[in-house]
Amino acid sequence: MAASTSTMRAVVNAYCEVFSRGDRAGYVGLYAPDAWIEDPVGSPLHHGSEAIGMFFDQSSSMADSIELRLTGPVRVAGGEAAFPMQARPTMGGVTFVVDIIDVMTFNDAGLITTMRAYWDAAEMRPADDE
Amino acid sequence: MAASTSTMRAVVNAYCEVFSRGDRAGYVGLYAPDAWIEDPVGSPLHHGSEAIGMFFDQSSSMADSIELRLTGPVRVAGGEAAFPMQARPTMGGVTFVVDIIDVMTFNDAGLITTMRAYWDAAEMRPADDE
Repeated sequence: MAASTSTMRAVVNAYCEVFSRGDRAGYVGLYAPDAWIEDPVGSPLHHGSEAIGMFFDQSSSMADSIELRLTGPVRVAGGEAAFPMQARPTMGGVTFVVDIIDVMTFNDAGLITTMRAYWDAAEMRPADDE
Repeated sequence: MAASTSTMRAVVNAYCEVFSRGDRAGYVGLYAPDAWIEDPVGSPLHHGSEAIGMFFDQSSSMADSIELRLTGPVRVAGGEAAFPMQARPTMGGVTFVVDIIDVMTFNDAGLITTMRAYWDAAEMRPADDE
């Protein structure tokens, strides 16, 4: 049976939460073993648990901390989910922000099978809302 | 040459504008002749200009008018665009709202080649913000 809407929403919330707190095992555990990530869209895929763990390390190492913050409702359709969010990296006490839309597919067990992230590094800016 | 970021942003704005004012020819003209629409994600494709025109007629006939309103920045990556918006149909003087994320690809001429819309009819609700 396909993942339910409530499962997909819960996974999206967990995804933002585990990434924000730097929980590598929690992050990798949300993905199916043969899942892939395309982040940003147009860049080479990170395919499988090992590559996804390395992608997590690589992303996390780019700042002292990075918050993923949902900025609107999760849209669910046809067993897929899309949601608007911000990545908010903090470096040397300064927080930056970039707007992202993630699109995810899921397997029957509710694990993420593909994740594509729409964002442009050129849009990164200092956060002026906190 | 691939469509530029500014072209894709302009097309997204035009897309919301022409749909909202019921401009069928304007809407169909934003798509490449062999483009397809999957709206919502998981439903059968509308493939080619004629089918896209019929999709427009079908969508438009569901309400007295339908506004498409952007609710956040357009995210551009790898020649694709994703953006959060609301469809706001008005029926018998009452405006409803449903949250959508559209994902689009483009050809070199800046015409839309594919459009996938993430939304769930079950999330439709009366608009309480106007």
